[in-house]
Amino acid sequence: MQVIDSIKKMKDEIKKAKKGNLSIGFVPTMGYLHEGHISLIKRAKLENDLVVTSIFVNPTQFAPNEDFEKYPRDEKRDLKKCEENGSDIVFLPQKEEMYPEDFYTFVEVEKLGDRLCGKSRPTHFRGVTTVLTKFFNIIQPDRAYFGQKDAQQLVIVKKMVEDLNMDVEIIGCPIVREKNGLAISSRNTYLSAEEREDALLLYKSLVLAKNLIEKGETNIHKIKEQMENIILSGKNNTIDYIEFVDLKTLDPVSKIEDKVLIAIAVKVGNTRLIDNMIVSI
Amino acid sequence: MQVIDSIKKMKDEIKKAKKGNLSIGFVPTMGYLHEGHISLIKRAKLENDLVVTSIFVNPTQFAPNEDFEKYPRDEKRDLKKCEENGSDIVFLPQKEEMYPEDFYTFVEVEKLGDRLCGKSRPTHFRGVTTVLTKFFNIIQPDRAYFGQKDAQQLVIVKKMVEDLNMDVEIIGCPIVREKNGLAISSRNTYLSAEEREDALLLYKSLVLAKNLIEKGETNIHKIKEQMENIILSGKNNTIDYIEFVDLKTLDPVSKIEDKVLIAIAVKVGNTRLIDNMIVSI
Repeated sequence: MQVIDSIKKMKDEIKKAKKGNLSIGFVPTMGYLHEGHISLIKRAKLENDLVVTSIFVNPTQFAPNEDFEKYPRDEKRDLKKCEENGSDIVFLPQKEEMYPEDFYTFVEVEKLGDRLCGKSRPTHFRGVTTVLTKFFNIIQPDRAYFGQKDAQQLVIVKKMVEDLNMDVEIIGCPIVREKNGLAISSRNTYLSAEEREDALLLYKSLVLAKNLIEKGETNIHKIKEQMENIILSGKNNTIDYIEFVDLKTLDPVSKIEDKVLIAIAVKVGNTRLIDNMIVSI
Repeated sequence: MQVIDSIKKMKDEIKKAKKGNLSIGFVPTMGYLHEGHISLIKRAKLENDLVVTSIFVNPTQFAPNEDFEKYPRDEKRDLKKCEENGSDIVFLPQKEEMYPEDFYTFVEVEKLGDRLCGKSRPTHFRGVTTVLTKFFNIIQPDRAYFGQKDAQQLVIVKKMVEDLNMDVEIIGCPIVREKNGLAISSRNTYLSAEEREDALLLYKSLVLAKNLIEKGETNIHKIKEQMENIILSGKNNTIDYIEFVDLKTLDPVSKIEDKVLIAIAVKVGNTRLIDNMIVSI
């Protein structure tokens, strides 16, 4: 496995791969790799000749009041996991090379980035789409892999690729959960033992919603109310949002007719967690 | 020469060219081709195996009050000029395919797009950088050719390419002028005979500035005043701006020390014209 830390070297390596007609799978990460990331690397390995994993805590997707500085990092362990799971190259660019002082260019998907998490994190998705555009230009992947856990991100990235005619296939992969249902996230590491218990209620509320819908409940208001009750039974929990939205447009649905994306964001203590489930009648 | 009107077909053609290791030169235009565009096509032909010229009046770079609808068009003549001057492919995409109804993604170079023409055309450069990102992704050129006449556009496009790590070399080409000095522009066609006379004063004011600077004048205020006098001697002229700026940052300079970009925008009757000159001590 190669570890590359300069953009120029990464571009040279990609040129070589393209000359050899190798297909390229790309897994963008912010490091502190967990089973979710590993499922993406393994899938990329199955579908491509060359797998590039990037590890970069991207400053432009954090607001000044957010956890950029304290976001968990463990480079040594990450490199080991990449190697063990089939990554051929790890790209570890430096913040200063990715964003020099006079960096001014941003890529923004309007409308889709304003709702759900965009309401409390107004510059977040702009940072995500900007850094991904940079990565796509540097790595020129045939396929890029994203977790369904960041459901809104996945929708936005697909839209960006479509709108800007980028030559990359975006592949969403299932949420990986602990046995107790908790969606695996790097931010889970912030939780105390008591907060971890409260965090389980996110998944429980989604399962409840699924059961209600499968039993024939179509009144979103009633479902939301029951989800709220479950989540708020955890004394560390405050709800940011519970939304029922269209899978592609992220527009709120007023009635459950076909497939619906149920997306939730909850602050557990000081830690903001997200989870979601796609439910169909 | 091939004429291609669908994005899919254009991408297929580029794939073939890449397989054959052909270098690609790209000349983006809004059509109504004149000697300025032709100089770009000729230069692209000299430096590349395959020349792609796009003709697309890009709606996102016009504000609602601007001349999108009446912007001059002459497809038949344009195709003839492309063929005569060495273009291998003309890409004529449809507005509906470039911007479907749910198009939400924009690329913006902040700061550099706010000044000069950006002041009176606040969404203009965002439209330019967005459509160019699309074209660069579709055509994957090795080199793209732009006229120095749109000096701010050239600076912004270079910055975008640098910031987003795009794999294309941006090549600026000299302003082409009529014998009388008027910078050639598709919008010159809007001018009445009397307005054409007044339009000549743009170039005259730039030549005057150059002469003053070469004679040792460093006081920008004094130079501007004399430029204003010349331009306003044309009774159809109103000045949008006369600016002395840094070639790369477009920051206003307070004193002429080395090279300076003198950029002007003037409304001649209802037609807004721009011109510029790079002057060094």
